[in-house]
Amino acid sequence: MADQTQEIPERPKGEGEGEKKGPSKNELKKLAKEKEKAEKAAKRAAEEEARKKEQEANDVSKDDYGQLPLVRKPSGVKHEKLVDLAKKYENETFENGPEVVFRATVENARNQSAKLSFLVFSQQSNTIQAVVAASDTLSRQMVKFAGSIPTESEVVVHGVLNKPREPVKSTTIQNLEIHVTKLYTLCRAESQLPLQVADAEGRIPAEGEENAVRDDGKPIVALNTRLNNRTIDLKANLNHAIFSIKFGVQQLFTEFLLERGFIGINTPRLLGAPSEGGSSVFEVKYFDQKAYLAQSPQLYKQMMIAARFERVMEIGPIFRAENSNTARHLTEFTGLDMEMAFEEDYHEVVTMLEELMLHIFNGLRTRYKKETDYVRTVYQVEEFKLPEAGKVPRLHFAEGIKMLRDAGEEIGDFDDLSTPQEKRLGALVLEKYGSDFYVLDNYPLAIRPFYTMPSAETQEKYNASEPNAGYSNSYDFFMRGQEIMSGAQRIHDATHLEKRMKEHVTPVDPKSDGLRDYVNAFRYGCPPHAGGGIGLERIVMLWLGLPNVRLASLFPRDPGRLIP
Amino acid sequence: MADQTQEIPERPKGEGEGEKKGPSKNELKKLAKEKEKAEKAAKRAAEEEARKKEQEANDVSKDDYGQLPLVRKPSGVKHEKLVDLAKKYENETFENGPEVVFRATVENARNQSAKLSFLVFSQQSNTIQAVVAASDTLSRQMVKFAGSIPTESEVVVHGVLNKPREPVKSTTIQNLEIHVTKLYTLCRAESQLPLQVADAEGRIPAEGEENAVRDDGKPIVALNTRLNNRTIDLKANLNHAIFSIKFGVQQLFTEFLLERGFIGINTPRLLGAPSEGGSSVFEVKYFDQKAYLAQSPQLYKQMMIAARFERVMEIGPIFRAENSNTARHLTEFTGLDMEMAFEEDYHEVVTMLEELMLHIFNGLRTRYKKETDYVRTVYQVEEFKLPEAGKVPRLHFAEGIKMLRDAGEEIGDFDDLSTPQEKRLGALVLEKYGSDFYVLDNYPLAIRPFYTMPSAETQEKYNASEPNAGYSNSYDFFMRGQEIMSGAQRIHDATHLEKRMKEHVTPVDPKSDGLRDYVNAFRYGCPPHAGGGIGLERIVMLWLGLPNVRLASLFPRDPGRLIP
Repeated sequence: MADQTQEIPERPKGEGEGEKKGPSKNELKKLAKEKEKAEKAAKRAAEEEARKKEQEANDVSKDDYGQLPLVRKPSGVKHEKLVDLAKKYENETFENGPEVVFRATVENARNQSAKLSFLVFSQQSNTIQAVVAASDTLSRQMVKFAGSIPTESEVVVHGVLNKPREPVKSTTIQNLEIHVTKLYTLCRAESQLPLQVADAEGRIPAEGEENAVRDDGKPIVALNTRLNNRTIDLKANLNHAIFSIKFGVQQLFTEFLLERGFIGINTPRLLGAPSEGGSSVFEVKYFDQKAYLAQSPQLYKQMMIAARFERVMEIGPIFRAENSNTARHLTEFTGLDMEMAFEEDYHEVVTMLEELMLHIFNGLRTRYKKETDYVRTVYQVEEFKLPEAGKVPRLHFAEGIKMLRDAGEEIGDFDDLSTPQEKRLGALVLEKYGSDFYVLDNYPLAIRPFYTMPSAETQEKYNASEPNAGYSNSYDFFMRGQEIMSGAQRIHDATHLEKRMKEHVTPVDPKSDGLRDYVNAFRYGCPPHAGGGIGLERIVMLWLGLPNVRLASLFPRDPGRLIP
Repeated sequence: MADQTQEIPERPKGEGEGEKKGPSKNELKKLAKEKEKAEKAAKRAAEEEARKKEQEANDVSKDDYGQLPLVRKPSGVKHEKLVDLAKKYENETFENGPEVVFRATVENARNQSAKLSFLVFSQQSNTIQAVVAASDTLSRQMVKFAGSIPTESEVVVHGVLNKPREPVKSTTIQNLEIHVTKLYTLCRAESQLPLQVADAEGRIPAEGEENAVRDDGKPIVALNTRLNNRTIDLKANLNHAIFSIKFGVQQLFTEFLLERGFIGINTPRLLGAPSEGGSSVFEVKYFDQKAYLAQSPQLYKQMMIAARFERVMEIGPIFRAENSNTARHLTEFTGLDMEMAFEEDYHEVVTMLEELMLHIFNGLRTRYKKETDYVRTVYQVEEFKLPEAGKVPRLHFAEGIKMLRDAGEEIGDFDDLSTPQEKRLGALVLEKYGSDFYVLDNYPLAIRPFYTMPSAETQEKYNASEPNAGYSNSYDFFMRGQEIMSGAQRIHDATHLEKRMKEHVTPVDPKSDGLRDYVNAFRYGCPPHAGGGIGLERIVMLWLGLPNVRLASLFPRDPGRLIP
């Protein structure tokens, strides 16, 4: 049917339909002229087409450039990595170097003249300059093609490695350049991108800095513009560095714990009941019932300890239905969780967690120095000050309160710290102990979850009319005055746990669907244990001094953002 | 109030209420007798109490046993691991060995006589026999206490290492035993457990085998009973072995890909729209809008390739709202995902994935031999037959169909394989190539997702009236005739992708919220790429020949199970 409708011949506009009498002389003359005009145009077009074809036929390079098909057969030709070429050849001297083939992204392309184009090719953060020069064996058409390839297109390059007359300053490989012999596009990018990768290399605006420009004249792109075009944004070296570091933290976390006999576990994200209080949990339609998304693997990792697993760790998504639109909250983030049995005292676990964090910080300092340094050229921040090994400041909660009061803060003995107070205390600890990293120990029982072990003193002084008074065996870890980890000794005795569930500031029902099996786990024997959960994006943000936690999430989720 | 009601004195039954006249002589006599009787009983009780107190005071061991408080102070005493003691002392000869302290689980406890108790202590799969013998320094009370500790209780043991007269056959450490000097419970288990750990060491019943018993007389416990009491079930060495292997697969997957330049990513599980077809997706209440749980990280890992990341991997939960109550479906499982740019031909990726799987299988064979062997004592299964390196059978889909037809199956050229047909083909491949692992390549385009790259031939023969005809550059990996991985070359060109989305058997809208950014990613440049997603629980199940995939999930989720 579509073909049939297309067969109806086109008619000049305004004529035809509704015409009743024959044409006048003038009209006939006009028609004849138009016919002549059309015939001339057709002739010109045919000549143009013929010239093009001749040119193409004469194009000595016609097989050496153009668009490749979506699916290709293997040629067996080795495809190089720029980083390897640099290592191998940058410090060598030669006139005409080896022929090489590689796949790359076009970072820049321009026609210098009809005979000469310059391009910059990149493989992630490695870049090299390329020259496409017309010659007996390389056509001007190919030069034009090369200089017109849109930025971000993916290409296959064949060329000869050469030494540039003087080092190229705009590329990472400065003592090599490519004299292109063949150039094919694998995926041609659009000419107009909604966000320039070069702009994405810069920082996000500070508050009230909308529409500002950088020193080099480039725009300071707003966070939302970046996140709306996240795939382009993520092409930036800045983001490659940030997410290398993010993965680095996970590797450092894993390797430290593996060396100490931990095993990785996979606990469910779909729960039959909101287990840790129902206020900030997402509800899921689960066939004809309801399910809930895990706010942490807390109960499950404890059940694994009860199941004799001794030392467990898990890296996985954590979901929090908190309607918080701040620079430090996400509704989905990555949790680094661990839980372990200990022998006598929960500080065995605190000490191991301190060492774990130092291992991560030192690993970032050494193994991810390049990435850290790069991000810090964009987001300037004070060097992260680490304590000496074994000397992580560990303050009793009461000591923290005292330091705040001495500094003029008004705060009650058992009040939770506000975010500004946490930052204040961080500054005070930095001043006193010279460390951006510290532990606040023995939080008040009343402000911790039901499974938190009351301190020995709190248990001794127990008074049924004030069951939540006193301190607990729990701790928070801080970086630059912001919490990155929460943890505690947990109650490993079912009877005591049930009691605490009922007496807690926000009581929960030990016999409810979501908690019954958890409580029972401790009736079947369980060693004393403690653990903690680390917010991965927070660590990355605070290590790098990023102004917003969303910058540490590939595709961040907040109450207003589920896309892309 | 409660105390007041308890103060009402008890009265003999049937008397008191409704009594109108004074007592008779007989009645007075009876009352006097009863009074005398009560006084005697009270005296006896007081004597008993005094004797107990005296006994306790005279109990030479009174500080050496009993229940420890929930919170303890550190003593600084080293706590040993049984595995280390075995290594250090099992092959040494001595009379009275060193004094040791360790924390352990009571696997067995019995009072042999008033003077002697035997216990078996375990630390995970390591067990040792212990003797508690009455002496001048060890009371009969302590012997009784020790022999009466319920199985699964967690204890702290102080004792002297000794050589048993003859090797102990029932424990893993056979040439050492402990002469207990002190014994404290940290967590006393209930005497009656709903499931015995020893019973959990056995297999689940086969179909129609309900209420059967094992050769050793122990019950064959049903899967549901185990899952309902999963914390106890997981204490079994069987499960420790299964979940060691499960973590092992993740480590082997990670180390192989890390060596090849992959980076781990964390993509969102909460999506703004069901991206891969809406039929089997869970819906989430997300503040005042709807969100959906990721059925795979497919679109995001491809966007990461578009974002120049080249090689990405991810381990994370996958959610499938399929109402399938089979032995091989879960609604939540762990996905091992990878995606990579390639140079010329997607078989570069297939080859790497084959090597990856061989690395995993060989790693399981060597590093997890002990665990594999243990599980195989419970679930007997044929040894997993591996091909030689580089010789993984890779069949074109048409070849697979031919083999099935030659074996008598009725199946169309482009029909998808049913589960029995997959198993049949697995058996045929095993017979022909001697391998339990093989790859079926070039699936029909019509039965693969919209993002699958049509094969070169399919593109050449494209016919608008049959846009889904022909084969595609996609593959499934099989173990023992069951699919463990699906993958393909993906369409890296936005225009072609949009066309396929519209022409697909189940069309999707390229401009929809869930897909717009994904399609756009390819407008901004993207290399050709391919990848795959592995179902972790399936690999574990098929490696070990487990009869149900739920056995490979710590806390499995299916349409009927969200708890524990």
